[in-house]
Amino acid sequence: MTVTTWHRVKFFDTDTMGVVHHSNYIRWFETGRVEFLRELGLTLTEFMDDGILFPIVEVAAKFHAPAKFDDELEIVTTAEALTRAKMKFNYVIRRRGEQKILAEGTSTNVFTCDGKICRLPEKFFTRLERGLQ
Amino acid sequence: MTVTTWHRVKFFDTDTMGVVHHSNYIRWFETGRVEFLRELGLTLTEFMDDGILFPIVEVAAKFHAPAKFDDELEIVTTAEALTRAKMKFNYVIRRRGEQKILAEGTSTNVFTCDGKICRLPEKFFTRLERGLQ
Amino acid sequence: MTVTTWHRVKFFDTDTMGVVHHSNYIRWFETGRVEFLRELGLTLTEFMDDGILFPIVEVAAKFHAPAKFDDELEIVTTAEALTRAKMKFNYVIRRRGEQKILAEGTSTNVFTCDGKICRLPEKFFTRLERGLQ
Amino acid sequence: MTVTTWHRVKFFDTDTMGVVHHSNYIRWFETGRVEFLRELGLTLTEFMDDGILFPIVEVAAKFHAPAKFDDELEIVTTAEALTRAKMKFNYVIRRRGEQKILAEGTSTNVFTCDGKICRLPEKFFTRLERGLQ
Repeated sequence: MTVTTWHRVKFFDTDTMGVVHHSNYIRWFETGRVEFLRELGLTLTEFMDDGILFPIVEVAAKFHAPAKFDDELEIVTTAEALTRAKMKFNYVIRRRGEQKILAEGTSTNVFTCDGKICRLPEKFFTRLERGLQ
Repeated sequence: MTVTTWHRVKFFDTDTMGVVHHSNYIRWFETGRVEFLRELGLTLTEFMDDGILFPIVEVAAKFHAPAKFDDELEIVTTAEALTRAKMKFNYVIRRRGEQKILAEGTSTNVFTCDGKICRLPEKFFTRLERGLQ
Repeated sequence: MTVTTWHRVKFFDTDTMGVVHHSNYIRWFETGRVEFLRELGLTLTEFMDDGILFPIVEVAAKFHAPAKFDDELEIVTTAEALTRAKMKFNYVIRRRGEQKILAEGTSTNVFTCDGKICRLPEKFFTRLERGLQ
Repeated sequence: MTVTTWHRVKFFDTDTMGVVHHSNYIRWFETGRVEFLRELGLTLTEFMDDGILFPIVEVAAKFHAPAKFDDELEIVTTAEALTRAKMKFNYVIRRRGEQKILAEGTSTNVFTCDGKICRLPEKFFTRLERGLQ
């Protein structure tokens, strides 16, 4: 499953170099992840209601070309791997309608139950699993 | 009581205009407020441990001149008013060692106990009161 | 003219209190302002190409109730006043589909030409003027 | 050369989980990098005056344990590699006075002269080189 979402670059996303500050792509990866889960019918709120959180333990990103103020960005999110202990997502960011990749990266999260690392309960696992197909 | 704290402007604080994005001054007002309370021997954590929060209900700011990347800013915080229901702070931001005011403003917060607006318990009130002298 | 735009609250928009950090509403006022101008056929990029900038000289906001993660917010922007020297906008933020106002405020900007305060050139003034009707 | 700098965690650095949002560590890596360069007598402003920028082309981070509001963090920056085409830095973030690593990572930047990838001019290269000793 691949989920696409969009972000219009804001003035406060840019820096003195006149381009998007690189840290913001890491934030937009999260936007992609949240929309990916929503597409599976899952919201972080629902996980949190069961005491389950998704702390990110690893991120990596490559920045190929800069986005600028007012660019409309397309964030394409794919689930790369899922076990009961962790989940890995892949992200590709382009300017809407262009082929050139501006930024790409991955994130890995573990699952915690009431603050401790745990094995993801079955009911969530089966739903997340559909995202890998 | 007047409390001074400092912030070195970061690249991610600036925008495409080559200056600090105005929303950041509102954040630095908070930095000033937290340091003001610390000077009184109070930390937000201590309030939170008692279920007391400080939600901001009003802010206002004037921006006179822009700060830039790597500027060292001086944030001067004064308590303007305190009742058991609310507190008002005043902030002035300058470049370190300069007289010219770059930004100034105020914030007003109420007090909440376990999520509801409440009258601030005596033990905190008497300590905050010292900040008005 | 009134222009409505939307923002889905991100995880990074929230803080330890479990609600949106108040400084973000100031950022979303800007989002409203940019969309208001776009509705008039104006982009900040177009102004910048003519060396014209819109530095904010004053903001004020009242926060009535907190927004939370994943809330879909509606940002309603109105132009309150326009002269050749300044422009004032008004903003109201609600949860989509609700009447209750979460936050509201105003911003005032001046116009600068090549870095100096200036009187807004006619071609831009007449277009902005349409926004007050 | 190893350069240490500090950051007190702000309320706006945290999120609904009650911990620092992971994207902020990427920002603090930059804080470390800027202070590392300052220790070498170099400021980004000086590079920018010569038309030289440092766009980040790659970042990677691991998050081992969360930082919380008001924690005082120590950011330790080391230069890992330098060629005339790129530079790689390594970062380790701990709570002040503790051994446990909260977050660690790397960044790689290229050099651009007037917007194009370039070989770093000698005068900057020799100064940066001292940072690898």
